[in-house]
Amino acid sequence: MQKVKEIVSSILKDHAIDTVYFVGCGGSLVGFFPAKYFLSCEATKLKVGYINANEFVHATPKEIGPNAVVILASQRGNTPETVKACQVAREKGAATVGLTFQVPSPLSEAAEYVILYEFGDGAVVENQKSSYGFKLAVELLNEIEGYAEYDKLLDGLKKMDGIVKKACKEIVPYAIKYAWEFKDDSVIYTMGSGASWGSAHQESICIFMEMQWINSSVIHSGEYFHGPFEITDKNTAFLMMKSTGRTRALDDRALTFMKKFNDRCMILDGMDYGMGELGDVSEYLDPCFHTNVVRVFNNLLADVRNHPLSVRRYMWKFDY
Amino acid sequence: MQKVKEIVSSILKDHAIDTVYFVGCGGSLVGFFPAKYFLSCEATKLKVGYINANEFVHATPKEIGPNAVVILASQRGNTPETVKACQVAREKGAATVGLTFQVPSPLSEAAEYVILYEFGDGAVVENQKSSYGFKLAVELLNEIEGYAEYDKLLDGLKKMDGIVKKACKEIVPYAIKYAWEFKDDSVIYTMGSGASWGSAHQESICIFMEMQWINSSVIHSGEYFHGPFEITDKNTAFLMMKSTGRTRALDDRALTFMKKFNDRCMILDGMDYGMGELGDVSEYLDPCFHTNVVRVFNNLLADVRNHPLSVRRYMWKFDY
Repeated sequence: MQKVKEIVSSILKDHAIDTVYFVGCGGSLVGFFPAKYFLSCEATKLKVGYINANEFVHATPKEIGPNAVVILASQRGNTPETVKACQVAREKGAATVGLTFQVPSPLSEAAEYVILYEFGDGAVVENQKSSYGFKLAVELLNEIEGYAEYDKLLDGLKKMDGIVKKACKEIVPYAIKYAWEFKDDSVIYTMGSGASWGSAHQESICIFMEMQWINSSVIHSGEYFHGPFEITDKNTAFLMMKSTGRTRALDDRALTFMKKFNDRCMILDGMDYGMGELGDVSEYLDPCFHTNVVRVFNNLLADVRNHPLSVRRYMWKFDY
Repeated sequence: MQKVKEIVSSILKDHAIDTVYFVGCGGSLVGFFPAKYFLSCEATKLKVGYINANEFVHATPKEIGPNAVVILASQRGNTPETVKACQVAREKGAATVGLTFQVPSPLSEAAEYVILYEFGDGAVVENQKSSYGFKLAVELLNEIEGYAEYDKLLDGLKKMDGIVKKACKEIVPYAIKYAWEFKDDSVIYTMGSGASWGSAHQESICIFMEMQWINSSVIHSGEYFHGPFEITDKNTAFLMMKSTGRTRALDDRALTFMKKFNDRCMILDGMDYGMGELGDVSEYLDPCFHTNVVRVFNNLLADVRNHPLSVRRYMWKFDY
């Protein structure tokens, strides 16, 4: 957190920040969703944006200028669209923070401030990419507008590593059951609400589509009844990333409906694994829980499908 | 436009508006995407939100108060979540504008200002729901911050009815071809970028999922290469709602890739039907083009699949 505090403090010395933008591609965009959602809920003055890096480059929002901070992520720091977006933001006078797992890299060269995050099996949850995006959001809000739950939320984030590691052991039998259940499905829908819509989206595009070549779509639990639910039959596969917070009622409503017609919904619910201890800030930390704990299921699914998570049809094979 | 001008003028007499929220469910939320996208691109002071009505009710953003205008839509004016969201917004002191096809209705009773829009075969494009959301956004921006392209954009919107009606005739052979091509597909992806992401999302949830029970997902053209493209094989069905504006390069990049491995992408491109005449504001009007012209294809698809657009499994059958 010290690093985040120093960066925010330094930015606020040079810029009258009124706009926070999160920019990236794929998993490096959706990892920012919890931070974006947090600011959309809690900020009363700050404007917040969340945008694909290439769209940012080609249709740069007019509000990007010296009063904006643009936070970008790229795993290897070499995603061309994200590096270019960083350059565009700097040219317009915005403060830029680059999150990456590789330094030096084009992104670490392009960004004014750089955060090296942890990734993979040994990573501490609060030092992961998504957590750094989140901490930057919380720190910016607290410094610019004040945020009453600041200590509680950061304390909760610290506790996530313990909650996640314990849950990853306890969930194994349930994860095995659904790895077998879903192994032959050609379509799997993910669902969520609030901050957890982000983790549901991430699972859909990064795991099912990218790493398993399974057709997928994320459905917001509150949108389910307004179109998407018509695809539900007794065989449709769903994975619900359930919220522990205010939008839990939306998830429950969808689950109640499904139980009438469909018995194929895997549910990841932090309430079953100690997230309730975190109090009313838990909903903002649900995505930390979901994205880390679902990895147990992802690995098992890859095993039973004999389709390693590392296999790609196109990525890394040629320029496109 | 006179009605929109009067509403905005009246709101600005009573409220120091710094926040514009678009609220709805399903097609009545996504119909606001062009308005939301326009403000996200062009506003430098106004904050903009776009949110499912039930999420708005359960996790009301803190910025909703006397300085906010909340714009809501419901076709019959009776969507419970949207009516409730309107009540919540009013209790917090926000200005509220309800767009509906039915007056009187619970939404028309709940909202401070009401706009009755046109719908169906005889509707003039600029009087449709989505166009009213868009005109409210343009008027609010122009009155609060000023907008240099105001006349050009509204003039373009007026021309949309002629462009759409002509295109609906010209596109028939192409639409027939793809109705036959896609009739047996169990999954169809829609794609788009910029404002057109909204029309692609609408086609995915309201037509393919809701009205045809075909599995579907919307993919942002700029996100395609960062996960989703791995599901592409020679049989994958895509419908691209192509932008005529700044993000067209993102769509073209995805299309170039697809042509290498996949020959099953239907493309709706306003450039083929006169959208170029509208100049650099055309991209904001692309969704008007897409959502109206794609109806020719939707009707033909329903015919060849022997699956009327009006059939539902669940909707209108019981309370859920």
